[in-house]
Amino acid sequence: MTGEITRRELESQPERWAALLQRLRAGALTLPVRPADFDEVLLLGSGTSYYLALALADWMRRRGIAARAVPSCEILLDPFETRDHDASRLAIGLSRSGRSSELILAEARLRDAGFTTLGVSCSQGSDILVRSQHALLIEEGHEDGLVMLRSFTSMLIALQWLTGTDADRAGLERLPDLGRTTLERYAAPLRKLARARDFDRFVFLGSGPDHGLACEGALKIQEMAIATSEAYHSLDYRHGPKACADANTAVVLFALHDRDHGLSLARDIKDLGAALLVVGGDAAAYRDVADLAIEGDPALDAGAAAALTMLPVQAFAYETAIRRDRNPDAPANLSKVVVF
Amino acid sequence: MTGEITRRELESQPERWAALLQRLRAGALTLPVRPADFDEVLLLGSGTSYYLALALADWMRRRGIAARAVPSCEILLDPFETRDHDASRLAIGLSRSGRSSELILAEARLRDAGFTTLGVSCSQGSDILVRSQHALLIEEGHEDGLVMLRSFTSMLIALQWLTGTDADRAGLERLPDLGRTTLERYAAPLRKLARARDFDRFVFLGSGPDHGLACEGALKIQEMAIATSEAYHSLDYRHGPKACADANTAVVLFALHDRDHGLSLARDIKDLGAALLVVGGDAAAYRDVADLAIEGDPALDAGAAAALTMLPVQAFAYETAIRRDRNPDAPANLSKVVVF
Repeated sequence: MTGEITRRELESQPERWAALLQRLRAGALTLPVRPADFDEVLLLGSGTSYYLALALADWMRRRGIAARAVPSCEILLDPFETRDHDASRLAIGLSRSGRSSELILAEARLRDAGFTTLGVSCSQGSDILVRSQHALLIEEGHEDGLVMLRSFTSMLIALQWLTGTDADRAGLERLPDLGRTTLERYAAPLRKLARARDFDRFVFLGSGPDHGLACEGALKIQEMAIATSEAYHSLDYRHGPKACADANTAVVLFALHDRDHGLSLARDIKDLGAALLVVGGDAAAYRDVADLAIEGDPALDAGAAAALTMLPVQAFAYETAIRRDRNPDAPANLSKVVVF
Repeated sequence: MTGEITRRELESQPERWAALLQRLRAGALTLPVRPADFDEVLLLGSGTSYYLALALADWMRRRGIAARAVPSCEILLDPFETRDHDASRLAIGLSRSGRSSELILAEARLRDAGFTTLGVSCSQGSDILVRSQHALLIEEGHEDGLVMLRSFTSMLIALQWLTGTDADRAGLERLPDLGRTTLERYAAPLRKLARARDFDRFVFLGSGPDHGLACEGALKIQEMAIATSEAYHSLDYRHGPKACADANTAVVLFALHDRDHGLSLARDIKDLGAALLVVGGDAAAYRDVADLAIEGDPALDAGAAAALTMLPVQAFAYETAIRRDRNPDAPANLSKVVVF
């Protein structure tokens, strides 16, 4: 059936997270190096893995680690990042397959430039795990589909756990249950929203810990539904991009930390004629404005809730693909791994 | 005439740059604080001004200043950036009008949090200049049109000059002449390319110093031509977004520092059926692959050439607006200043 692999992997996430958390809790998955020990931490990836790097860099910075996300290609193309430096630097390379050419080449350059390197991948024995000085295999994220879904959330949760506090870990422990409930409760409303209109333009707005997630949401629409999709820092939408909003635009807003500004933005979006899906811990506050509001758990901070928040976003992209007669198992023009 | 204000302001840029450089050379425009004296420099803006912040942060980092760009809204929405800190921190707020609500509110928060603040604007006596501890007025960037064009390039050149080396300044001195030549030589080819097909999707790809410019290019299309437009770090295009490429897609590539990777990417884009415009110092190398290649000056580094590189990008957006019967002087949904 069209999109069957993708749908199964999407829905498998809460179970895989539970298995992953069990291994983490048992100490069967540990970080070979401590990011906090370095003056600077670069997180690298391409496409979805770059957006994962953005989300993780934000998470780490808020926990006192001097982390920064960089697309792998920038290391490869730009001698500036690999210039001589006195600081102790760690590069964490993220890749589902562990075979992305840009990351493999970037790892070598960074190692030559004196970085300690850690490869993170969902594929056993993959290049990035073998070549990097340190390796972290997250098998629960392995997937057969072309579009990265559970690899994104599994690598995210694993690295959040491994760099988080006890309180962070307690929050992450709740994700499998919350994820199951979210998928069950919102499958039908999401399908209905995705089919409500002939949406042909999608916009994802997120701030703070949600910005990387907004970028990843936009990419899911492009890959699965082969439709135009953009991501912005939330309020930046008013500074130009909203010029293009119309009745066939669907906006996905990650509920803002600041409720007043969030609701004001939500109302502006509705006034432009666009449909509005709000996701995140505070989404319930948007119920009267949004076409659909999918609340996670208000007690969970936005960073720890990231994997949970992505579930309805991924499901919305999937349902949009089906509505547009696209097959998310085999998107146009794409290959599973970008190798050159 | 439709778009007349915008066209005039676009074409006025080389003359305004010349006037600006004369004032800079004469020492009539100086920085009231030295960014290099601070442990950390934040550059803030919204929309075009955020992309200006990205370009300037990249410029400053390469010149030893610990600079970082942040959208103004993130300061406003996220308590994390204004947390207590021991470091000496400078915030540079960028706004053509000097009245953008997000920036005004962000400046107050940052000042309260111990940042030294510097406001930069093209409007005399504007809020950001009055409220900030230090102010820099760049009158040459003032403009009547709705879309930011010469304000972007003027603020860019002024801050590049003021934080650059003597060699940087010698490069910047050449921009007015190069700008005049570029506008004259490429007006007709750009108009022809913009009308070559019924383009309805635009993609801007830039790496290193060009990434902020790519974002700004995408925004120009949205604002002027009311069309779908996205920006990515160059090679990230292969990691998903290219799924949507077709014959009605126009890709604008900022010529890469690494020619082999750039040409390979250019060929991939042409293989997808998209049209390709290449801009930047090394654009001539792409002449056989691209639909149009607009070379700046190969001797100028990408950072110093930024304002020059933007001219054909702005002109392409303008010509696309005219082709699509949009009026860039009065874009749908937009106001000149975002105030709430």
